[in-house]
Amino acid sequence: MRAEIITIGDELLIGQVVDTNSAWMAEKLNEYGIELYQVTSVHDEKEHIIAALDEAFRRVDIVLTTGGLGPTKDDITKHVLCEYFDTCLVEDLSVRAHIYDLYQERPDVLNRLTATQWMVPQKAEILENRVGSAPLMVFHKGDKLLASMPGVPYEMEIAMKEQILPYIETKVESRKSKAIIHRTLQVTGIPESSLAIILEDYENEMPQYLHLAYLPKDGIIRLRLSSYGGATEAETDEWFGRLKGLVKEYLIADTDEPLEVIAGRLLKAKGATISTAESCTGGKLASLLNRHPGSSAFYFGSVISYDNSVKEHLLGVPEELIKERGVVSEEVVRVMAEAVRKLTGTDYSIATSGIAGPDGGSPEKPVGTVWMAWATPKGTSAECFHLGKLRNQITDRACMKALIGLIRILQ
Amino acid sequence: MRAEIITIGDELLIGQVVDTNSAWMAEKLNEYGIELYQVTSVHDEKEHIIAALDEAFRRVDIVLTTGGLGPTKDDITKHVLCEYFDTCLVEDLSVRAHIYDLYQERPDVLNRLTATQWMVPQKAEILENRVGSAPLMVFHKGDKLLASMPGVPYEMEIAMKEQILPYIETKVESRKSKAIIHRTLQVTGIPESSLAIILEDYENEMPQYLHLAYLPKDGIIRLRLSSYGGATEAETDEWFGRLKGLVKEYLIADTDEPLEVIAGRLLKAKGATISTAESCTGGKLASLLNRHPGSSAFYFGSVISYDNSVKEHLLGVPEELIKERGVVSEEVVRVMAEAVRKLTGTDYSIATSGIAGPDGGSPEKPVGTVWMAWATPKGTSAECFHLGKLRNQITDRACMKALIGLIRILQ
Repeated sequence: MRAEIITIGDELLIGQVVDTNSAWMAEKLNEYGIELYQVTSVHDEKEHIIAALDEAFRRVDIVLTTGGLGPTKDDITKHVLCEYFDTCLVEDLSVRAHIYDLYQERPDVLNRLTATQWMVPQKAEILENRVGSAPLMVFHKGDKLLASMPGVPYEMEIAMKEQILPYIETKVESRKSKAIIHRTLQVTGIPESSLAIILEDYENEMPQYLHLAYLPKDGIIRLRLSSYGGATEAETDEWFGRLKGLVKEYLIADTDEPLEVIAGRLLKAKGATISTAESCTGGKLASLLNRHPGSSAFYFGSVISYDNSVKEHLLGVPEELIKERGVVSEEVVRVMAEAVRKLTGTDYSIATSGIAGPDGGSPEKPVGTVWMAWATPKGTSAECFHLGKLRNQITDRACMKALIGLIRILQ
Repeated sequence: MRAEIITIGDELLIGQVVDTNSAWMAEKLNEYGIELYQVTSVHDEKEHIIAALDEAFRRVDIVLTTGGLGPTKDDITKHVLCEYFDTCLVEDLSVRAHIYDLYQERPDVLNRLTATQWMVPQKAEILENRVGSAPLMVFHKGDKLLASMPGVPYEMEIAMKEQILPYIETKVESRKSKAIIHRTLQVTGIPESSLAIILEDYENEMPQYLHLAYLPKDGIIRLRLSSYGGATEAETDEWFGRLKGLVKEYLIADTDEPLEVIAGRLLKAKGATISTAESCTGGKLASLLNRHPGSSAFYFGSVISYDNSVKEHLLGVPEELIKERGVVSEEVVRVMAEAVRKLTGTDYSIATSGIAGPDGGSPEKPVGTVWMAWATPKGTSAECFHLGKLRNQITDRACMKALIGLIRILQ
């Protein structure tokens, strides 16, 4: 069974908003055994939306639309769907009651524009939007169906999880594809092309219904083995096992989880704690380490020492050392790591100092040079990296290097 | 003149990668007076790519494709384009020389798979990819053109800026649309529907070729006034000026810049510096403040006090106070803000402490409760917010509240 997503909104097509919804929806659809065939982003424009609906219904059985359901004049999705499905708006008393309930403590929201939100297409089935005023709508077109939901990411996520996916499951169960299976591992320290040469025989021997994809990013290559109904779990696992064996030298993880989740699990398993002292990464590493639920079990805190005065006063990096060795140096990151470990009383710590640019580079230490240290109960190690030329690329890659180093130490 | 983007890659359609490229490209295209009409994401699959190319060429004059240009077996874009434009691969000596140059210090990359990168479609014009091995290709189809580039964001960005957009400009100059104009302002503290009621007369009086869009996110509503060739700059500015007047009570910015950029500019103008003490935001606010070039002029550093022991030892929050008032309290954030301001010697500081969940909530302080304090040369203020129920939503909104508070103080 195949689905498509149509994201509706000028903001997506002028670059004001990045579409994060589609990736999230894709993953969930796959879990339900539904393949996402295409994503199409269109303008808030009647003819454009209708053309996209027509094309999508020609290709797939399930069409999901996001966006254009707000109470303001630029939001036209509901009206276009009325026209497309040849129906009209009627008042829905249960949506009305829900909206009154939702905003009982915010009477300012209960104005006449919000009142347009309980007018719904007569032919649509209405599902409850627990967290917002836009009703979730399902339309049928023969055997096919369309579900329309808001584009605000957290409203969309709750709508999909609690309403739309369970609804689709009941309607399409009998027509569902065989299981869609993805297995991903992560490697580091080898160029993509060299990796592909190592895996050449493996790829040639692989049955046609298995597919291997290479996804390089921030110094890590994710290798994904996929089956769209052709292989069983056991067969996929067998091929995945072989793959792991072939790349074991470079393997950093045998799941698709973010590295900070893997590092967090390793820390928790040891009952160990961590802190960071960050200069160039500026808190990015800290916020990775604490972005997932449960991180307070292992992440204690950080000193972000962006300015040298903070390195000196909070972390006790001697002014002399900075003058002599430079702030981006092995000596300085070692002091930073050991100082923050002591200050926070954690078992481990990571320190970063680098030149993120665009200014501050020199012939000896060009933009992209990053020194990093890992302090552990058994001592401190340090390493220097050259991580490219673009500011955010450098800091993202530095975070990945920091986590790879940590995972290697914890393993 | 209109363009479309076709993003090629299974990773986009199984949710493994978020497409950040399209938004970036859209913005640049608009700057060149080119409207982005549609974005289509398709699988690494010949028939699918060809169908998308056919459809896009029916609608627009410029088709941009990203992805599928790596040296591995799953990358098929180059071969599909050969078939689509009825041509074959030939060796390109200048691409070969460029790749040798690029990897002169990494001979391990110069293997036989990388060698496939200098085989290029005979009918394509080749533009130099300064930072990678995949050649940038331009094909012509009558008056129309297609440019194909890598999907790795920083390679795509350099390719677009340095090669593809200047190339397109020389080819399509005479057929360019009139200027595409966008003006955006940001408001806070009013529901979207109430805002729309305030602006009802304004929207009704607005000429048809001007368009107003509402973009709510993280407690801020961006209001965008757009013209696709219908209005002059002066006319748009006049309507934008009226708009500003109508919402001035709620106005936080009259540009589309991120709030941290606006705060940074205000700090620089005052020659003032800032630091943060973060609990629930965990470094996210710090990394916002230092993510843009030039931030070292005003951002000095932070203490991320995730664990209470760090609040006590590094920031001197009395254990008694935490016991008595709770760690999420006005008293604690005030101490945190004043402590970090003193420790780092900055003019301003911001402190956050909240319950990001999913655990840790109570009836008095449910998940989403965030206390925040701003310490300034003239004293300290604090405020409590309720920011929703989802972890990342809470911390993102908390950062926005922190920045809004800072901007209000600095203005």
